[in-house]
Amino acid sequence: MSDTAAPSVAVIGAGGGGGYYGARLAQAGRDVRFLLRRDYDAVRARGLRVTSPDGDFTLDRPTIARTPEEIGPVDWVICALKATAIDDAPRLIAPCLTPDTRVLALMNGLGIEERFADRLGAGRIFGGMAYTAIYRTGPGHIHHLDLGRIVIGHLRNDPDELALAKALWDGAKVPIETTASLLMTRWDKLGWNIPFAGLGVAAGGVTTDRLVGDPGLRAAARAVMEEVLAVGNADLAARGETARLDVPAIVERYFRVTDAVGAYRSSTVIDFAEGRPLEVDAILCEPLRRARALGLDVPYLALLTALLRALDPAPASPEE
Amino acid sequence: MSDTAAPSVAVIGAGGGGGYYGARLAQAGRDVRFLLRRDYDAVRARGLRVTSPDGDFTLDRPTIARTPEEIGPVDWVICALKATAIDDAPRLIAPCLTPDTRVLALMNGLGIEERFADRLGAGRIFGGMAYTAIYRTGPGHIHHLDLGRIVIGHLRNDPDELALAKALWDGAKVPIETTASLLMTRWDKLGWNIPFAGLGVAAGGVTTDRLVGDPGLRAAARAVMEEVLAVGNADLAARGETARLDVPAIVERYFRVTDAVGAYRSSTVIDFAEGRPLEVDAILCEPLRRARALGLDVPYLALLTALLRALDPAPASPEE
Repeated sequence: MSDTAAPSVAVIGAGGGGGYYGARLAQAGRDVRFLLRRDYDAVRARGLRVTSPDGDFTLDRPTIARTPEEIGPVDWVICALKATAIDDAPRLIAPCLTPDTRVLALMNGLGIEERFADRLGAGRIFGGMAYTAIYRTGPGHIHHLDLGRIVIGHLRNDPDELALAKALWDGAKVPIETTASLLMTRWDKLGWNIPFAGLGVAAGGVTTDRLVGDPGLRAAARAVMEEVLAVGNADLAARGETARLDVPAIVERYFRVTDAVGAYRSSTVIDFAEGRPLEVDAILCEPLRRARALGLDVPYLALLTALLRALDPAPASPEE
Repeated sequence: MSDTAAPSVAVIGAGGGGGYYGARLAQAGRDVRFLLRRDYDAVRARGLRVTSPDGDFTLDRPTIARTPEEIGPVDWVICALKATAIDDAPRLIAPCLTPDTRVLALMNGLGIEERFADRLGAGRIFGGMAYTAIYRTGPGHIHHLDLGRIVIGHLRNDPDELALAKALWDGAKVPIETTASLLMTRWDKLGWNIPFAGLGVAAGGVTTDRLVGDPGLRAAARAVMEEVLAVGNADLAARGETARLDVPAIVERYFRVTDAVGAYRSSTVIDFAEGRPLEVDAILCEPLRRARALGLDVPYLALLTALLRALDPAPASPEE
């Protein structure tokens, strides 16, 4: 809450992703305050432990709280809730806000930042797309498996705001990029999530190596990806953005990365396997709504959406 | 094996469908011989019991055999094996054949009759499409739930042969129709099987009421159905047949029937739930191969096929 002290950061939703990135900011000297529920006691007793190819470390005494009121007003809120909790997210972070607090939504799916903007105005809303593999392996223990890059966009694509967002991560062991089009990067990320999370669940909860290794599923993943990215370009055009997705390059990149990563379970496949609500609305339904609003025929997206809604183990409900 | 005595009929694959229809023929005085494996002892001890809205009955001492050699040559073979056993079917029925024996394939999927014809010639091969709900509920016990009509086609669409096939069922409590185009009726049946069995499995093994009751799945089922029937019409045209499927009428009929039938599990969904091999090749892969050979873009069929191949609990293997 000052220009001279370390920026204060509230991490709301400290599962794998929130916990890891918050810990990296704390390691770099930021005043990070974690909202914890189920892990509160474990972290108070033994700290927050991170295993990572970029170096293991433990925050022995991180600032933790059970309620957002205990955290109080901060400079930045990193909201890393499941997208299934989006209805409650603005209310949940409210106690951490001043009129100047900026909000980084480190969440999956489309339309997330707009939901925050409805309540808080667009000028201070950012979205973060994490290209990474991070699991919470137990109470207070996070395993960072691979990669880790975050691409940050601003809801109004303001370059000055993007520079501020990037500066927050100065000195932190996290590769940060900014995007000149948040919407383009959201669609880019969906180009991976929809085929690999969607097919991963619909094929029975399988790892990505099954999807890229089976010729039929690999062809399906490619077709889904191309369809989604085409909707993305139509959506960008309809919203007056000049940015466009380079579809062949993205397809080549995602298959190369996914071929290399081995037996990976997307967070949606893990949610499915563990009987938790799926982020179907943000990852599939919102893209489908936009495709339909544009009058596009999207058989793959329509079929996958219907299947994942049916396979969703539980109705969406607020969760940490 | 004579023109004066009752026609002899071997029923190969006496699960629900084979058992029910064979029992109805025996009830009507045909010399029916059932090939049994797991149910042999139960049927020898207590007979073959049928529960049906068209009247319950029991065959106290049906002619049963453990091997096709014991059955020996007959006038008709009704092959009601799972389509997963198609590779072994011609060999399995061989001991029951004379040069005049006719074969009725009461099996699911596309390309079944052609496989028999490869070995036995097309002139004596028939296909039967059963529009029914029949379960084997226990050893020697068959529950006929609803409907029960069989539509019979001849591989060369020969009217005289069709008349012979229909005559076999004279006096039996089974509504028999014949079709002037076996291929058209195979595609007609696939117009139900592919959406309802395919989506039923991919949506987690659900009953048909879930598929018609959920707006997203209902729309998907309709789109799959329309795509499949369009492939059927293209396949008919490519093979020089004049018959065509009336797509809107079929769609209307199938949704009306499926809306009425309630919580029904297709045989494929039952196979899936019980961990048995799925009839993926005959129901999905062969239609997909034909669509691709015709250069058609079939996103729904391609995606469902890839998913069901992945969800198939076990590699195909011969079974009764």
